[in-house]
Amino acid sequence: MVLSGADSGPRRLSDDECHRLLARHDVGRLAFVVGGQPLVVPVNYAFCHDRVVFRTGEGLKLRRTPRHRVAFEIDAVDEARRVGWSVLVKGCAYDITRADDPLAEELRRLPLSPLGTGEMSHWIEIVPLEITGRLVTSSLLPPGTQRS
Amino acid sequence: MVLSGADSGPRRLSDDECHRLLARHDVGRLAFVVGGQPLVVPVNYAFCHDRVVFRTGEGLKLRRTPRHRVAFEIDAVDEARRVGWSVLVKGCAYDITRADDPLAEELRRLPLSPLGTGEMSHWIEIVPLEITGRLVTSSLLPPGTQRS
Repeated sequence: MVLSGADSGPRRLSDDECHRLLARHDVGRLAFVVGGQPLVVPVNYAFCHDRVVFRTGEGLKLRRTPRHRVAFEIDAVDEARRVGWSVLVKGCAYDITRADDPLAEELRRLPLSPLGTGEMSHWIEIVPLEITGRLVTSSLLPPGTQRS
Repeated sequence: MVLSGADSGPRRLSDDECHRLLARHDVGRLAFVVGGQPLVVPVNYAFCHDRVVFRTGEGLKLRRTPRHRVAFEIDAVDEARRVGWSVLVKGCAYDITRADDPLAEELRRLPLSPLGTGEMSHWIEIVPLEITGRLVTSSLLPPGTQRS
């Protein structure tokens, strides 16, 4: 995708652009809420059949994402050129580790983790409610923002 | 900071490392909650006196961050080398646009926006409750995660 540096303000990305970006990358940020406090952590993910899939072990992500609203975000911003893009997935997370429907079985075959680690034994699927994206242009990152 | 590719699992960053990384970068991700749904958006920021400061115009960020819990995250992950780092600020946001205490006045002098845009006329300060960071190593981004 060509990133424009024009100062015409943020442009919304098309659905196709959002999906292509999600399919092309491996690392994004998962946001979830614990007691009213949002948290953000980077995760390795796959995007397949419009689902964001990641693996996790025992811990806060496993305790606080299944059956809760989450957000998943990817972006790339060139701080020097002040252009970039971001894609945001709003959705609900589900633990599909033991789900036996064909989609869950397919998602669990995605190459997301080495065999035998035992550490990330849970598969979490984010079912999107909305996927949006936008170009980040100089109106978000104005001249003079770089500190010395 | 030297990033280790060792597979000894994530290492926590020291307070000094977190603060240095926050001071050295300009773009991060703000997470906030709207009706139980977490949202994540990239923002241009400054870090000064342990505060994350950003500007915003009228909109969701302005309506939903002041006096609410927010998270602010920065990271850099090399997808190919499978190493990187992330820093997470948990805190509460305040609109300091009209605050007349010396700290607010100093924060509003940070070079965060061009003069005269009128678009991002509100200054938001995130007062940290906790700042944590960690190295992202191959245990988070295991071999075999890159899709063809």
